[in-house]
Amino acid sequence: MQNLLEKINQKICSINIPEQPAELYEPVTYTFSLGGKRMRPVLALLGYSLYKDDYEKALDAAVALEVFHNFTLLHDDIMDNAPLRRGKPTVWHKWGNSTAILSGDAMFIKSYELLSAYEGELLKKLLPVFNKTALEICEGQQLDMNFETAKNVSIADYLHMIELKTAVLLGAALQMGSLVSGATDEDAQNLYEFGKNTGIAFQLQDDILDVFGETEKVGKQTGGDIISNKKTFLLLKAFELADESTTEKLNDLLNEKNEQKKVEGVKAIYHLLEVKKLAEAEMQKFYSKGLSALEKVNASAEKKKVLTDFTEQLMQRQS
Amino acid sequence: MQNLLEKINQKICSINIPEQPAELYEPVTYTFSLGGKRMRPVLALLGYSLYKDDYEKALDAAVALEVFHNFTLLHDDIMDNAPLRRGKPTVWHKWGNSTAILSGDAMFIKSYELLSAYEGELLKKLLPVFNKTALEICEGQQLDMNFETAKNVSIADYLHMIELKTAVLLGAALQMGSLVSGATDEDAQNLYEFGKNTGIAFQLQDDILDVFGETEKVGKQTGGDIISNKKTFLLLKAFELADESTTEKLNDLLNEKNEQKKVEGVKAIYHLLEVKKLAEAEMQKFYSKGLSALEKVNASAEKKKVLTDFTEQLMQRQS
Repeated sequence: MQNLLEKINQKICSINIPEQPAELYEPVTYTFSLGGKRMRPVLALLGYSLYKDDYEKALDAAVALEVFHNFTLLHDDIMDNAPLRRGKPTVWHKWGNSTAILSGDAMFIKSYELLSAYEGELLKKLLPVFNKTALEICEGQQLDMNFETAKNVSIADYLHMIELKTAVLLGAALQMGSLVSGATDEDAQNLYEFGKNTGIAFQLQDDILDVFGETEKVGKQTGGDIISNKKTFLLLKAFELADESTTEKLNDLLNEKNEQKKVEGVKAIYHLLEVKKLAEAEMQKFYSKGLSALEKVNASAEKKKVLTDFTEQLMQRQS
Repeated sequence: MQNLLEKINQKICSINIPEQPAELYEPVTYTFSLGGKRMRPVLALLGYSLYKDDYEKALDAAVALEVFHNFTLLHDDIMDNAPLRRGKPTVWHKWGNSTAILSGDAMFIKSYELLSAYEGELLKKLLPVFNKTALEICEGQQLDMNFETAKNVSIADYLHMIELKTAVLLGAALQMGSLVSGATDEDAQNLYEFGKNTGIAFQLQDDILDVFGETEKVGKQTGGDIISNKKTFLLLKAFELADESTTEKLNDLLNEKNEQKKVEGVKAIYHLLEVKKLAEAEMQKFYSKGLSALEKVNASAEKKKVLTDFTEQLMQRQS
């Protein structure tokens, strides 16, 4: 795994970023330097490695996914007015909106440049997967923004949103990695399903950790979702289960200005309604669904275990 | 020509734009409905038609270029704070920045979706041209923004900027159209040079018309570049040629608040220094350079004439 990460970071460093105009390209290098878990490229390489050993051949696709992911963060941070990312100032916050828009666009093009490394027949397979996924991620971001002000967001709506906004890219990473290795379309599709469902499980876990995680393990202050009234699985489930008086209490808490009081109050209701358990069950449901898809994949049990070791390690982080 | 335009607009209307989320896709349909000269797709189809008659085969590439161009306008309008485009409110002005960023991104993806229609070997040729051009256009937009506050912009800097910001896409349109028809790489490259140099000539003509054109023929109020202190060929040339007292007068005019007085004053200096003639000569120089590249293209004189009839008609508009 350490070896994969090294290769991925080497590949990112080797991307040809022109020096001029500096105003356009400096934010790109800055973004790459911020690092990250590199979950998407790792999944792409693991998808490839199910079939063949020379995973370097999947590095262009793997890193295209990472560059694309970083591009979406650049634009999302403008829309979400987020000042920090990985503990550092976001690009729009450091250089302004115009820079963040344009440097983001340049990164997006760079991701297509990386994909273009593959020969025609393979390119013809990879490009539609990448395009479809990219468009779904835009849709997910739009839905996420809509939900901020929407009155009636159902749990199904929420699951659909996180599927688009974050899960499909994990599915596409496994799918594209496997396609590069020459996997059958059926295997690639099952790997997509595994990645997508696992991605939904990851997001549900993020929601849980944001409320119940230990700050030092999660690596960020918890309670942020509660403070910002984010309509997560937990909040939506709480509203679904709450009786009249609890609903009223919950609504009052959404307007509570004292952050500590707000977090503690909402958490108390979550405990009362046992929404954490329900979220964990939902998370397991999606992960199991993913595993069923993985079972159908025609690769050795040993190779699949490398993949599930990785996803399970992610599922158990900080919980 | 009318037939080409109809086919292009039909193709644009046939692009599959999902209905939901409406907030994401409505601005896309809105942008397509605003129309435009469709210069880039026409050039792509003319590039194809130099070699073969069934130009419908180049429609995907042609419309990919138009969709891409419209995407850049969406993002540029945010950066330039432009409230109107083709006489209608710009997307950011109508729906806000977040919408314009995200809908722009979606349009960008749609342009790659259109390109993906071609079979692998051709895709492998088209994609690098498209990526390179797209990145250069980002660079051009960045330089254009830099120039607003830059102290020393030379005429060479300006020509480099307009080459990147507007001319390379016209070159790429001809190149890609010809590649779809199976033209040799050499022919495609010469067509690119023709399109690029013609594009620089068009932009110089735009600069001239913005100052000296007749409002009713140009279709917009003239003098905008002078009012906004835009560093065009004319202004840069005037500063290059001006003696000390004229330079001082020109600098005073840049700070003049009365718009009519400003436009008349700057125009008087342009007349004095004969910069219009010099701009026209520069425009002709680039167009001739383009024609020399076109001469080397292995297509019939008759077919080439269709292409030059189109570019010359554009060169002579409203002058």
